Amino acid sequence: MFFASDNTGPVHPKVLEAIAAANKGYTLPYGNDPITQTARDNVREVFDAPEAEVFFVTTGAAANSLILASWANPWSAIFCGRYAHIHDGEGNSPEAFSDGAKLTLVGAAEDKFTAAELDTSMSAWDPGHLNNAEPGPVSITQVAEWGTIYTLDEIRAIADVTHGHGQKLHMDGARFANAVVALGVSAAEMSWRAGVDAVTFGGTKNGLMGVETAVFFDPEKSWEFQRRRKRAAHLLSKSRYLAAQVSTYLENDLWLELATKANSSAARLCQGIAAFSDATIAFPCQANLVFAWMPRRVHRGMIDAGVQYYIERGQLQGEDPEELLLARFVCGCTTSIEDVDQFLDVLNN
Amino acid sequence: MFFASDNTGPVHPKVLEAIAAANKGYTLPYGNDPITQTARDNVREVFDAPEAEVFFVTTGAAANSLILASWANPWSAIFCGRYAHIHDGEGNSPEAFSDGAKLTLVGAAEDKFTAAELDTSMSAWDPGHLNNAEPGPVSITQVAEWGTIYTLDEIRAIADVTHGHGQKLHMDGARFANAVVALGVSAAEMSWRAGVDAVTFGGTKNGLMGVETAVFFDPEKSWEFQRRRKRAAHLLSKSRYLAAQVSTYLENDLWLELATKANSSAARLCQGIAAFSDATIAFPCQANLVFAWMPRRVHRGMIDAGVQYYIERGQLQGEDPEELLLARFVCGCTTSIEDVDQFLDVLNN
Amino acid sequence: MFFASDNTGPVHPKVLEAIAAANKGYTLPYGNDPITQTARDNVREVFDAPEAEVFFVTTGAAANSLILASWANPWSAIFCGRYAHIHDGEGNSPEAFSDGAKLTLVGAAEDKFTAAELDTSMSAWDPGHLNNAEPGPVSITQVAEWGTIYTLDEIRAIADVTHGHGQKLHMDGARFANAVVALGVSAAEMSWRAGVDAVTFGGTKNGLMGVETAVFFDPEKSWEFQRRRKRAAHLLSKSRYLAAQVSTYLENDLWLELATKANSSAARLCQGIAAFSDATIAFPCQANLVFAWMPRRVHRGMIDAGVQYYIERGQLQGEDPEELLLARFVCGCTTSIEDVDQFLDVLNN
Amino acid sequence: MFFASDNTGPVHPKVLEAIAAANKGYTLPYGNDPITQTARDNVREVFDAPEAEVFFVTTGAAANSLILASWANPWSAIFCGRYAHIHDGEGNSPEAFSDGAKLTLVGAAEDKFTAAELDTSMSAWDPGHLNNAEPGPVSITQVAEWGTIYTLDEIRAIADVTHGHGQKLHMDGARFANAVVALGVSAAEMSWRAGVDAVTFGGTKNGLMGVETAVFFDPEKSWEFQRRRKRAAHLLSKSRYLAAQVSTYLENDLWLELATKANSSAARLCQGIAAFSDATIAFPCQANLVFAWMPRRVHRGMIDAGVQYYIERGQLQGEDPEELLLARFVCGCTTSIEDVDQFLDVLNN
Repeated sequence: MFFASDNTGPVHPKVLEAIAAANKGYTLPYGNDPITQTARDNVREVFDAPEAEVFFVTTGAAANSLILASWANPWSAIFCGRYAHIHDGEGNSPEAFSDGAKLTLVGAAEDKFTAAELDTSMSAWDPGHLNNAEPGPVSITQVAEWGTIYTLDEIRAIADVTHGHGQKLHMDGARFANAVVALGVSAAEMSWRAGVDAVTFGGTKNGLMGVETAVFFDPEKSWEFQRRRKRAAHLLSKSRYLAAQVSTYLENDLWLELATKANSSAARLCQGIAAFSDATIAFPCQANLVFAWMPRRVHRGMIDAGVQYYIERGQLQGEDPEELLLARFVCGCTTSIEDVDQFLDVLNN
Repeated sequence: MFFASDNTGPVHPKVLEAIAAANKGYTLPYGNDPITQTARDNVREVFDAPEAEVFFVTTGAAANSLILASWANPWSAIFCGRYAHIHDGEGNSPEAFSDGAKLTLVGAAEDKFTAAELDTSMSAWDPGHLNNAEPGPVSITQVAEWGTIYTLDEIRAIADVTHGHGQKLHMDGARFANAVVALGVSAAEMSWRAGVDAVTFGGTKNGLMGVETAVFFDPEKSWEFQRRRKRAAHLLSKSRYLAAQVSTYLENDLWLELATKANSSAARLCQGIAAFSDATIAFPCQANLVFAWMPRRVHRGMIDAGVQYYIERGQLQGEDPEELLLARFVCGCTTSIEDVDQFLDVLNN
Repeated sequence: MFFASDNTGPVHPKVLEAIAAANKGYTLPYGNDPITQTARDNVREVFDAPEAEVFFVTTGAAANSLILASWANPWSAIFCGRYAHIHDGEGNSPEAFSDGAKLTLVGAAEDKFTAAELDTSMSAWDPGHLNNAEPGPVSITQVAEWGTIYTLDEIRAIADVTHGHGQKLHMDGARFANAVVALGVSAAEMSWRAGVDAVTFGGTKNGLMGVETAVFFDPEKSWEFQRRRKRAAHLLSKSRYLAAQVSTYLENDLWLELATKANSSAARLCQGIAAFSDATIAFPCQANLVFAWMPRRVHRGMIDAGVQYYIERGQLQGEDPEELLLARFVCGCTTSIEDVDQFLDVLNN
Repeated sequence: MFFASDNTGPVHPKVLEAIAAANKGYTLPYGNDPITQTARDNVREVFDAPEAEVFFVTTGAAANSLILASWANPWSAIFCGRYAHIHDGEGNSPEAFSDGAKLTLVGAAEDKFTAAELDTSMSAWDPGHLNNAEPGPVSITQVAEWGTIYTLDEIRAIADVTHGHGQKLHMDGARFANAVVALGVSAAEMSWRAGVDAVTFGGTKNGLMGVETAVFFDPEKSWEFQRRRKRAAHLLSKSRYLAAQVSTYLENDLWLELATKANSSAARLCQGIAAFSDATIAFPCQANLVFAWMPRRVHRGMIDAGVQYYIERGQLQGEDPEELLLARFVCGCTTSIEDVDQFLDVLNN
């Protein structure tokens, strides 16, 4: 029973087939091959963005940091949420790739920040004053770190503030598919039509082997992305094996099918946990993440029974059996209803 | 007829099988899974180095730069050959990863440098003087960029000079397998037994999908490698798919079998070109690279006939049909004797 | 009537005399001259720290950033107050000098943070987890940015937390002299005896031309400071002209005499403003800084009368004459009682 | 008898007077004061460049590195001479300030390089190819490191090549005054009229306390210089004390008077050494530097007699009394004819 993360589940069989199909003869390296070109076109189609620039890398941290570094100066502030993955999950990659820009944490809530909060943060740095950091790009995470989702209106408002300050908006879409499915909107609606200037379009957490796609709707700085990608050693010679995965991912809406499965499992999981008398759901379950407070003794029982997940707040070690610890449960695209029911059986017994 | 590079040929079928075999259920991310642990052990065995620290990344530039940055300070000089790939093929990655160390080019020859030349270069910077860069690590490329190979004695002499200056020696082994086969020695003999402190053990140019292995024989700074790898966004969550490739690569000496094939094809190719009256071999053909000077008209004929390769010196465009241009021909692990003979047919007709 | 800052008042006449006295003949460059050596000894004596390592630079930002960078790794978090000068007044210098470390803001108050708040912040980053930043050094500002002063007990408690996490404590002492005078303690008591590992010992805001002194009580990493100072182009060839200033500054307690004058003027200023019916003192006046809320119309009158100072919160432009704006008034070492009284005359008329 | 360097002689008395004269009352910090504005205008006048942007810093390394970093990208190559001070005398400052650009050494001679050599070096990096560094700015040193001087025609030819590659030309003018005097040209003729885009206009080696002036004739990137200067902690609050030095330096051609004196002394020194039977002048003496090969025994005698200078090649320690060692003798603006004659007396006796 693995609910620890969606970042290390198995690869979808069609993805392996696509890799095998791409494995024919020699081709041009560094993305100049036809398989890569086709995959780039496929992404443009899905986003309804024929002018977009599209690049493939192997990690989300690389896509996020390279996009932000293409926009930021070393003396910039980059704005993000208090628990943004770029802030606390990437080992200072954004600072490294941008040669020392400063991440500035926005808002009071743990998950999403508001347009008004962003405006306050961006206004605090005077762009004409050398002493402080220069206001730079903004990054939001969709699905946010605690499982909630920005509405289209919220994104648009944040984009307006960002653009009003002359800056660009990035969306860390590690779980982009889960959000699109949850909102019932298109990729275009949740990105450039809402004012997003570039997206990290995740694949690894939704059935791919390790491919994240950087999509620049505003291609102005995409040449710089390419210089930075090479400099960061993230330009793969055998690009076709990344690209083939992406084409298959988009074909016949496989990416939506997989995210739908994860979200559905999570919804059932959330319902089941909410019904459990000793648990309190911590954040609205809007995508494929469930957060719940439960007593230490319940956690111990679950873990003894072989359930794998992370405790986000508090320590399993400790004396008081009734102390509440916050747990994160993640459903991936291979988490079945049966997996969930098995989990709920353990919880309720 | 593809002789442009060995960095973009197809993946060996067994490698794809290994990936498929690894694709079972959930596991721990970031290299904490059993498949990764096994592959690390496999590397240790092949290098006869039970204490070695072993890490997998997706590009050679990442492995090279991360190893060197783990040893260098930002105020260091890193010593390498005049045409080292880390100098002219990686878009300033070593400088970026080391936060600004300076590459210092050693020697007079284009391919290999000598221990005496290295000593001259390292001695030119006074380690106690703040004004100049501090002497730092040394990097050699094996197979060197122009197809020649350092002998064990040459490596040992370079290692002695490096260590005499209190520094560490790195081997960029993008074509490590080709060199081991050519020299008829073991992995251990060509690395730590000859004084090498860390190796980039290449796989991508020899049949893998995109895996390079950093091997630290001296594990002192390997903790820093891990911090730097994460910071550089080169720590993959789904590590098992890299690791599975490496285990298969080492099993039953597949890596040696593939390199033997590439070297054999290159030897035949070299012989054939050398016999061609209008060509002059530029460097001894010791591994899987062949360099030859040929008149512009010959190149034009070859390229018109569909042969793919790079011209390293001179321009195909130009008037004088007799002007000599330097070409590089590479045999990969899927280049067959038939491919070579087909090439020679074109050349001779 | 200049109350804008203490960073640009005139230099004390004795300091100019010392520079002139140092201006004799040739000497060794880069701090190897006897005048520099003497000044380093003078600092050691004043701090009662014969083993300390002492370096002179021309800006506080350089001293702060070079000390912190000598201790931090690029993947570190550096802990400081919410309005620390290193965070919002130095144009990303600490990030630049440390090659991308992350400043983490501690506490709820605007000026000082507590040991308990620091412990919470440092504990939030798991030192063994690659995903987050590694906890690094801590920096406190004494006098803090809003004019208040850490007590010796508060410093000691913060040092204990810092050391408990295996890290080092830096004190940004741009106004070190003002704090020493206010607390009535010695330089040693307010620094190493309270657990501080290195101090930026300010001079520029207290009568020098532009000299800040980095003092390492723990000399372990002071060699790295020297490499970093050279690399940052902050090693001056004509070091004697900085050093001569420092020796004079310390001779006969000139530094304390100057800070006493600034603090006394500020105390009188604070008293006078507090007595003014339309003003509210915002922070306790403990050194040479006074913060007060006053209506817009009062500010306009002051500024029209030629008083120079900064408004920290709110805009002079605006409609409502009664809106409260927060002002900062600074007394420097040449601000006389007459200057203060002249100011209060304007305020009260 | 101090012939070691011109970087640590005494300050001219008029410069101290100017500092004292500037020491009146409070003023605006960070260069917004009238003294700084006047000095900036004075520089514009001397260079006959009313549109130039002018900035003061305390070290030549800062001026050089900040100018180059304003033009270079982190993935750029910066082109300079084999023994350029920015390469071997600044502790990797240019790499640090540019966040990792690569210095590429041009030419065969030790001092000056030619336009043709520069063209070869710049052409070796394909600007459209991500694998190699992108060709970036060019830097020449005037007076060059071994005492020779670029003619106006040589500068113009180098500028043409630089601009032909779409890049900008920097002149490290640590000894700008000595070169202007030697060539008998104006500041404008030796800089922007010859195609130079920015100059480090040195003062420290010619009688100032520690001021180097960055002059951008092409102001396009000068805003970036200001951001970088602040970030590098090289923006001084008490700017007026730097500026006052510069105004005095330019007034009544003091800067030319001082350089004339240094050059004259060096000419006499060169003549005297050349006449000495055991010495060989190594480079033409064109400004204020003299390089000569002399046997070890002669050096020992000189040093025993109290002459201070650097040996550039070879070691004073050693057995063979006849082994030739290369020495550098520098005349500063306070080196008198009597000093030179005293030196020659020692040499000849």
